[in-house]
Amino acid sequence: MEHMDVPRFLGLLVVMLGAAKLLGFLTTKIGQPAVLGELLAGVLIGKSAFGFVDPSNETLHLLSELGVIILLFSIGLETDLKKLLRVGGASAAVAVVGVVLPFALGYATCRLLGLEILVAIVAGAAMTATSVGITARVLSDLGQMQSQEGQIVLGAAIFDDVIGLIILAVVSGLAGGEPVTPLGVAATTAVAFGFLIATLVAGRLIVPRVVGLAGRIDLPGTPTILALILAFALAWLADRVGSAMIIGAFAAGLLLVGTPRYHDIEAGVTRLGHFFVPLFFVTVGASVDVRVLDPTNSANGRTLMIAGLLAAGAVAGKFLAGYAPFWFRGRKALVGAGMIPRGEVGLIFAQMGMAGGVFDPGLFAAVTLVVMVTTFIAPPLLKALAPDAPPGHVPAEPEGIDMLATDE
Amino acid sequence: MEHMDVPRFLGLLVVMLGAAKLLGFLTTKIGQPAVLGELLAGVLIGKSAFGFVDPSNETLHLLSELGVIILLFSIGLETDLKKLLRVGGASAAVAVVGVVLPFALGYATCRLLGLEILVAIVAGAAMTATSVGITARVLSDLGQMQSQEGQIVLGAAIFDDVIGLIILAVVSGLAGGEPVTPLGVAATTAVAFGFLIATLVAGRLIVPRVVGLAGRIDLPGTPTILALILAFALAWLADRVGSAMIIGAFAAGLLLVGTPRYHDIEAGVTRLGHFFVPLFFVTVGASVDVRVLDPTNSANGRTLMIAGLLAAGAVAGKFLAGYAPFWFRGRKALVGAGMIPRGEVGLIFAQMGMAGGVFDPGLFAAVTLVVMVTTFIAPPLLKALAPDAPPGHVPAEPEGIDMLATDE
Repeated sequence: MEHMDVPRFLGLLVVMLGAAKLLGFLTTKIGQPAVLGELLAGVLIGKSAFGFVDPSNETLHLLSELGVIILLFSIGLETDLKKLLRVGGASAAVAVVGVVLPFALGYATCRLLGLEILVAIVAGAAMTATSVGITARVLSDLGQMQSQEGQIVLGAAIFDDVIGLIILAVVSGLAGGEPVTPLGVAATTAVAFGFLIATLVAGRLIVPRVVGLAGRIDLPGTPTILALILAFALAWLADRVGSAMIIGAFAAGLLLVGTPRYHDIEAGVTRLGHFFVPLFFVTVGASVDVRVLDPTNSANGRTLMIAGLLAAGAVAGKFLAGYAPFWFRGRKALVGAGMIPRGEVGLIFAQMGMAGGVFDPGLFAAVTLVVMVTTFIAPPLLKALAPDAPPGHVPAEPEGIDMLATDE
Repeated sequence: MEHMDVPRFLGLLVVMLGAAKLLGFLTTKIGQPAVLGELLAGVLIGKSAFGFVDPSNETLHLLSELGVIILLFSIGLETDLKKLLRVGGASAAVAVVGVVLPFALGYATCRLLGLEILVAIVAGAAMTATSVGITARVLSDLGQMQSQEGQIVLGAAIFDDVIGLIILAVVSGLAGGEPVTPLGVAATTAVAFGFLIATLVAGRLIVPRVVGLAGRIDLPGTPTILALILAFALAWLADRVGSAMIIGAFAAGLLLVGTPRYHDIEAGVTRLGHFFVPLFFVTVGASVDVRVLDPTNSANGRTLMIAGLLAAGAVAGKFLAGYAPFWFRGRKALVGAGMIPRGEVGLIFAQMGMAGGVFDPGLFAAVTLVVMVTTFIAPPLLKALAPDAPPGHVPAEPEGIDMLATDE
């Protein structure tokens, strides 16, 4: 591992944050989410292109992991558990079908191409989770957030984010080398569910008291730092008991929703996220070997074919899920289209598959490409399917990496 | 160097931030600044006591350096150049005498004890800079910020922070192994002044245009991230041209004062500081080998004697500086007492002396002890010397690491 001194570290941060902001800005200018630009920034300055960023550097790896932990913490902070439990049949139907179909299509595609079961499971799992952030962002841009369709999509997206986290814990156990047995899957599921439930139950009892005590520490920034301590501690604990670190961070977010200093915490975590989260996306992008996507190289045919087939299944699976609540009399196509964009969680699967040695660089690039494609396709499709914005609607300011915020 | 995985990194952050917050809280409860608690937290969990924190770990070192760069950036953001240039003779006299006297006393003490010239220079320099933050915090707690005495102290403290930065650049050049010649000192001074002046002049021309252009990127968090990019880039540049990184960061802060998104930038940098700055203080504390302070060990007599003599000179030098503006008819003792607390910059000198091999662990511990002693002595002394708070004054909420904020 190469030694990094402070000036070099500063130079690296300048290049990473600068490229993320510049390409994030350019992608929003052409109507796409900023996260896409951050990924592209990583690809550009990553190992296969300009070579500024070496994602295997320990400090960079730790900071980028801190980024994804803070991201999932902030998703937890934005998730209303009661709303989640209150969502009706429509959201649940869209969410469940929207997880099962893309998984099945992704799994089948990989198996038909002769890939191993474990590879097919991870690839299928990477297709399942809709990005709440991108969905919410696009719908609010179109003035459709408060429509029935918008509410169904939002509920389903939040729902499948939680399902995605459970799948993530199961699959990360599998990818970690545990044998693929029904008992193993059940055990991993139990650990994932068990940790989440135990944490939420114990947390509901303990956290309010701790928050009450901590409220006496009235130093500025203290609520945010104590919240981060909770998130890091639960992430650490999740790892200790065999669950995924991000589930711990997500649970910490859920536990802090509605506590007295909630708005202060949310503002602080969002600010920290502005710094750390792009480092994650840029590092993910930097891990993509663009050479495997070069169509003039015949050896890449396989990668591009896999990416194309996976993308077709990923789009079709979510789009059809919009028709799952057959009793709903609104624009089902709009609901389906709203579920298409994938994001953070899909990329986490890709990175996990790569880190666990389950994916080869070609498949890693293919899955990353699918995430990019779904992110690209959704906004124009939604624009075509949505009615005109209600009168008086002012398009939301582009929200960039803050796209995870729901409209509270 | 030991490998650090993500869960261990998270555990380390939990321990460092948790200890910093807990001891910071306890020290504010006994009327002392939170920074003192953060230093003590570092001593407790550092290598010589519980051994959780190894300050030589690369990632920890880089994060703690990022902390001090962000700290100096935020000092720059809080510094009003015009106010600095407008401050009258009183502030200037207090500042200059308050730099010269403690330096001379510290230098003379070390030379009388038979230490080398370079060691005496670094130790003397470590005695010079009043901590703006601690001063401002204590004065506002006492309702004296808007008094004549308060304004003089504030002006002088800001003034000597800049002098301190120049001294820092000179001394860091010297400590870096450059020979101690008048020409060398002049050259280093020229580089330090030159970089600061060139950066401020060029920056005044360029920054407003860049800020104007960047204002078109209206993604959330963008002003803060672009400001950080400027700070990191100027810190990197300062290092390249042979000045100190923190001077680059400080200059970046000065350049951004009053730009259109200033308040957003300040809020964002403050939030990031809440996370990174305590990591610096805890790491500094963790570097202190408490065993050299054990009075029952006769080998430590020298360290404690040096610390005692340096502390006496450090307190007397600043206190007497309060009498430098002989024409001022107010409470000169209050002004002098207000100048006593040392902080960040003194610790930076100590760390630099240690890193450059100029200080042995005993002297490092002694200088750190002097900073702690001055920080401990000032608040009760100020309380004793100040008149009662003006009617209607509500004691400021303890400000912790936000203590750098002036009352704007």
